[in-house]
This record gives sequence, C-alpha cells and structure tokens, in this order.
Amino acid sequence: MSAGAGPYAVSAADVTAAAARIAPHVLRTPVLPCPAVGERCGREVLLKMESMQRTGSFKIRGATNAVRSIPDADAPRGVVTHSSGNHALALAVAAAARGMPAHVVMPANASAAKRAAVERAGAAVVTCGNTGAEREAAAAEVERSTGATMVPPYDHPWVIAGQGTIALEVLAQVPEAATLVVPVGGGGMISGIAVAARALRPDLRIVGAEPELAGDAAESHRTGTRAPQRPPVSVADGLRAALGELTFPMVRDLVDDMALVSEGEIVSAMRLAFEEARLVIEPSAAVGIAALLAGRVGGRTDRPVACIVCGGNADLARLPWLVPAGA
Amino acid sequence: MSAGAGPYAVSAADVTAAAARIAPHVLRTPVLPCPAVGERCGREVLLKMESMQRTGSFKIRGATNAVRSIPDADAPRGVVTHSSGNHALALAVAAAARGMPAHVVMPANASAAKRAAVERAGAAVVTCGNTGAEREAAAAEVERSTGATMVPPYDHPWVIAGQGTIALEVLAQVPEAATLVVPVGGGGMISGIAVAARALRPDLRIVGAEPELAGDAAESHRTGTRAPQRPPVSVADGLRAALGELTFPMVRDLVDDMALVSEGEIVSAMRLAFEEARLVIEPSAAVGIAALLAGRVGGRTDRPVACIVCGGNADLARLPWLVPAGA
Repeated sequence: MSAGAGPYAVSAADVTAAAARIAPHVLRTPVLPCPAVGERCGREVLLKMESMQRTGSFKIRGATNAVRSIPDADAPRGVVTHSSGNHALALAVAAAARGMPAHVVMPANASAAKRAAVERAGAAVVTCGNTGAEREAAAAEVERSTGATMVPPYDHPWVIAGQGTIALEVLAQVPEAATLVVPVGGGGMISGIAVAARALRPDLRIVGAEPELAGDAAESHRTGTRAPQRPPVSVADGLRAALGELTFPMVRDLVDDMALVSEGEIVSAMRLAFEEARLVIEPSAAVGIAALLAGRVGGRTDRPVACIVCGGNADLARLPWLVPAGA
Repeated sequence: MSAGAGPYAVSAADVTAAAARIAPHVLRTPVLPCPAVGERCGREVLLKMESMQRTGSFKIRGATNAVRSIPDADAPRGVVTHSSGNHALALAVAAAARGMPAHVVMPANASAAKRAAVERAGAAVVTCGNTGAEREAAAAEVERSTGATMVPPYDHPWVIAGQGTIALEVLAQVPEAATLVVPVGGGGMISGIAVAARALRPDLRIVGAEPELAGDAAESHRTGTRAPQRPPVSVADGLRAALGELTFPMVRDLVDDMALVSEGEIVSAMRLAFEEARLVIEPSAAVGIAALLAGRVGGRTDRPVACIVCGGNADLARLPWLVPAGA
C-alpha cells in the first residue's frame, strides 16, 4: 500500500491494486435500472446491487483485500476484528477462503442468527460486554494473545481500498452517470469510492447519504471538524458508526455533499424496494434511495444517478413497516 | 392475428408482432446471474426477472397485447375478465393506459389487498361467488350487458402471443442458454414462449415446471390427453389453473419435458431467493428455481440455463416459511 505517499491513507492506485487482488473472490455485482424510484424523483436511477454480493454486503471487498494483503509469514496467526454486523461475517468468510483462522469479538447482545452465521463460516466467536470500550479491549486481548492481524471494520487502508473497488465497477457499468449516491456510516465505503472515482471522473458528483439520527458525517463535512458518534439508535444499523481518523479527511475533501434522511424516510424507501422494485435490502441500503426520493441529492437530472445498495441482510421476520416500532 | 393459419392458435410471427405492439408499455426486464442457485445445481443459472415487470408480473405483456389489439370501434366498451390474481391487475393497468374501461369479476373471497390494487388501477370490480362457474357466469353477464371484450387470463391468442414476447427478450439477452425453464399454470406463458423459441432456436431445451399438487400439465404432456384441473391448493397460487384448449396442444408438442416439484421444494426455493439471492418473488415464481434445485431439469450442464421468474407479488407479512402452514 502507498499509505503516507499521498495526501490520504489510500490512493486511486491502491484501489486498482485491490481490485486485481479480490477479483477471484468476490462478485462483480449487477447494476439494475429502477423505474419505481426513477419515476418518483424525475431522473434515471441505477442501483449497484452490493446486496447481491457474497455474504450479502460490500464488506467482503474490504475484508478480502485485507486478508489477501497479509504477508505469508503472518497468515497462520489469522485475523481478528470486533463487529456484530456485516464486517464480522465478511472477515470470517474471507479468512476461511485463504485458510486462515479468524477471531470475531461480538457483544453478548448480538443476534443469535448473526453469531451463528459467523460460526458457520468457521470463525471463533469471542463474547464480550456490550460497550464499545469492552469490545475494543476484548479484541486487543485476542490480538495480543494470538498474534492475529487486526482488521477493523472501516478505518484501515486495506479495508478502504477494498471497498473502493465498487467505484471501478460502477463507473465501467454506468459510464453515463453524472451522480453517485453512497450510504455513509464509518466512511470506509465512501472514502474508497471517492478517491477512485475522483481520479477517473473528476466531474462526477458524489453525495453521501446518512440517517439524521447518525448524522455525524454530515456535521463533520459541514464544519470541517470530526464529530463524535451519535447514540446508536437508527434503524439503519450498519450506519451508526462515526467517521474514522483515516476516512474523515477523505470525506471532508472528496465528497461534494451530504444528504440526511429521517427514520420514516428510510423505512418507506426500504418498503418501496421490497414492494415495487422487488429487491431484498437492509435498512442501511435504503438510505441512498431515501435521499433520492426526498429530493436531497442535487446535481444534473438529465443524466443517470447511480446509487449503491450496500447490503441485503434484512430480518425478514421483522420488516420495519410490518412490526410496531420498538417491538 | 394469424389464428387458424398455422397448426396452433399463435405463430412465431404473432409473437414478433406482439413485441412491437407492447414495447412502449412494458419493461424489458433484466436477466440476473444467480450463483446461489447455480452453485447448488452445478450449472450457470440466469434468471429472467419478470417479477420486476410493471404490475409485478409477466401478465402485463398479454394484457397489453390484448388491449392494444382491440379495434378502435370496440375500444370504448372496454374489457372484462375474471381473475383474482396478477391478470386482473395487469388488465386493469393495460386498459387504463389506453383509456379504456375495465371490468374485473373477482370472487367474494379474493384478498382485500388485491381488490384494492385493481380498483386503484381504475377498474370496476364486480363481486361474484367463489366457484369457477359463478365467476364465468358473472363475467359473461358483464360482457353481455356492457359489450366489453372478454380477455381471459391465458387461453386466448392475444394473451398467449403477448406472454411469448419473453422468449424474444431472453434469447437475445442470453443467446448462450441451452435450456429454458418456465413455470406452468394455464399454459399461456409457456405456449407463447415455446412457439417463439422453437422458431428462433430449434435446439433449445424447453422444460415446464409445475407444482405436484397442480400437476395436470405434466399429466397432459405425458398422456397426450388434456387432464382436468386439480383442487386449487398449491402455495403457488398463480399456477393452479389447468391447461386450456389452445395452450394444451402447444405444450404437448413444443415442450421437451415437464418437472414436478413438491410444496416444500417450492417454499425452500422461495426462501433461497429471498435470503441468498435477495430477490422478492412470489411462490409461483419459485417453481422453476425449485425444479433446478431438485435436479429435474435435465439437458446440458456445460451451458447456461435461463429460468423465468414470473412474478413478485408476494405477501411479505405472510412469507410461507415464517408462518405456520394453514395459518
């Protein structure tokens, strides 16, 4: 990696190298036209279906790039992370594909289904307390005692570069797009996408989409100072994290605008995806669609907008428009 | 139409004419690779996503071809049909698009949601008794009193030709396919597809997929005699009808083989589509996937198989693997 060689933790060349590294192990996901959304927002909308990616989210890109970047000498000691979400499963699958051990620290209150999926992928799950500090302490202890390489969920050059490979695909699949909408949590995906896309298409409008209730990235982008994490309450559970030290300057400098959406707008967009586009998506993946439906994306309406649908790991027994809030 | 000019009610030329007629009014639906199914059945699987078609099913093709084939002199008196399913909504939408009245006879036990959707599309709903005879009598009475043109759900040359346009699209989108899997209810879709596909690709293997509990088409294909309708109990509610007078000889002569699947296989395939392929499909649309997963399709495994995913109008509040049977 060229970390330190450029102004940011990751360069466009790092993303290109990551694409070659992960190509045998991840899917080139399809891009689907979405007239149900397009007719409502007055522009052609194309969805990049990372919900159909292996493990059900884009996270396998960064996890695979990290796992495949670890030197042979370190590989036998494996990888470790702390996550209760898509990154945990992705890292478990990526490590298993290289024949490496994986240790995943999950809080005691993580869902039994997610824990089981990580274990099925072959990872060792370490249970810890539910606070962020407890998770980090438990992961550090695993790192110390096993010598495993830490692969954090977003704030790492390997992970950012891997997620950025989405940009290379979508710009090749939809070269006519004038605008790109990307959901933002910790900022790993949008940072990698932005650094790669800026190099290829300096004129592309890049808009981050974020829940109002997790609006630290929008605040950070507006003020130029990294804002703290909000209380983790948004239905878009994949986007609750705050920007990281590495992702913050890339979001600040390379993203044109941020769009905030309400919880109701997220649920309505998710429902529209299921009922009219006939796509299974998770709440976090509805955030970009919600920004489009709310008219908060801006840019040219005479050329297509591409929107990243980042994951499909929805709980089908508890679709949020079918269960009472808080149930 | 050339009805009577060839051996069957519909010719390949009728399908080509239908494609030009309906093109401005329907979507060219995408074809998606489906590794989740492909890896399980040992061949490349491509899904033709009619679930993403306008009105959520392929039925808009036949309905639009019928509506657009009615002479101007007859158009003001509108159309009439009896259906409680996807054909009812499709005909309502197709008629509204031409500015024609539509009368839809629905049984009293039809779901309130389906009735509301048909009414939202602008059709007049006529309630009738729940038996097939009551439905047909009520539709005939509407036809007599209004002068509307009857557009039955499948056994009509206009409808068969419209559904057949799927073949022209999928063979252009996936020219390398060696096998085509098509769900079978009344046979309108597979008849139109088979007559068009045989003309373009005589070597193509065409397999119908049918629920065991609605296996009249498989029996008719095997015996050469049209079998009666089975009790309408399959979870694949769009496939409960028996073959029609017009569709039977086309299925008998032009379809290579029929594959039967159990109710459990249908539900498992539907669940796989939601949970791994991240697609919203209705039970009838899972029948072709179920036949592939069960290994009952046959033909070359070294070339892709295309499978028609015929509709996406699933009841998301009652997904069949999440509710007790009979609940």
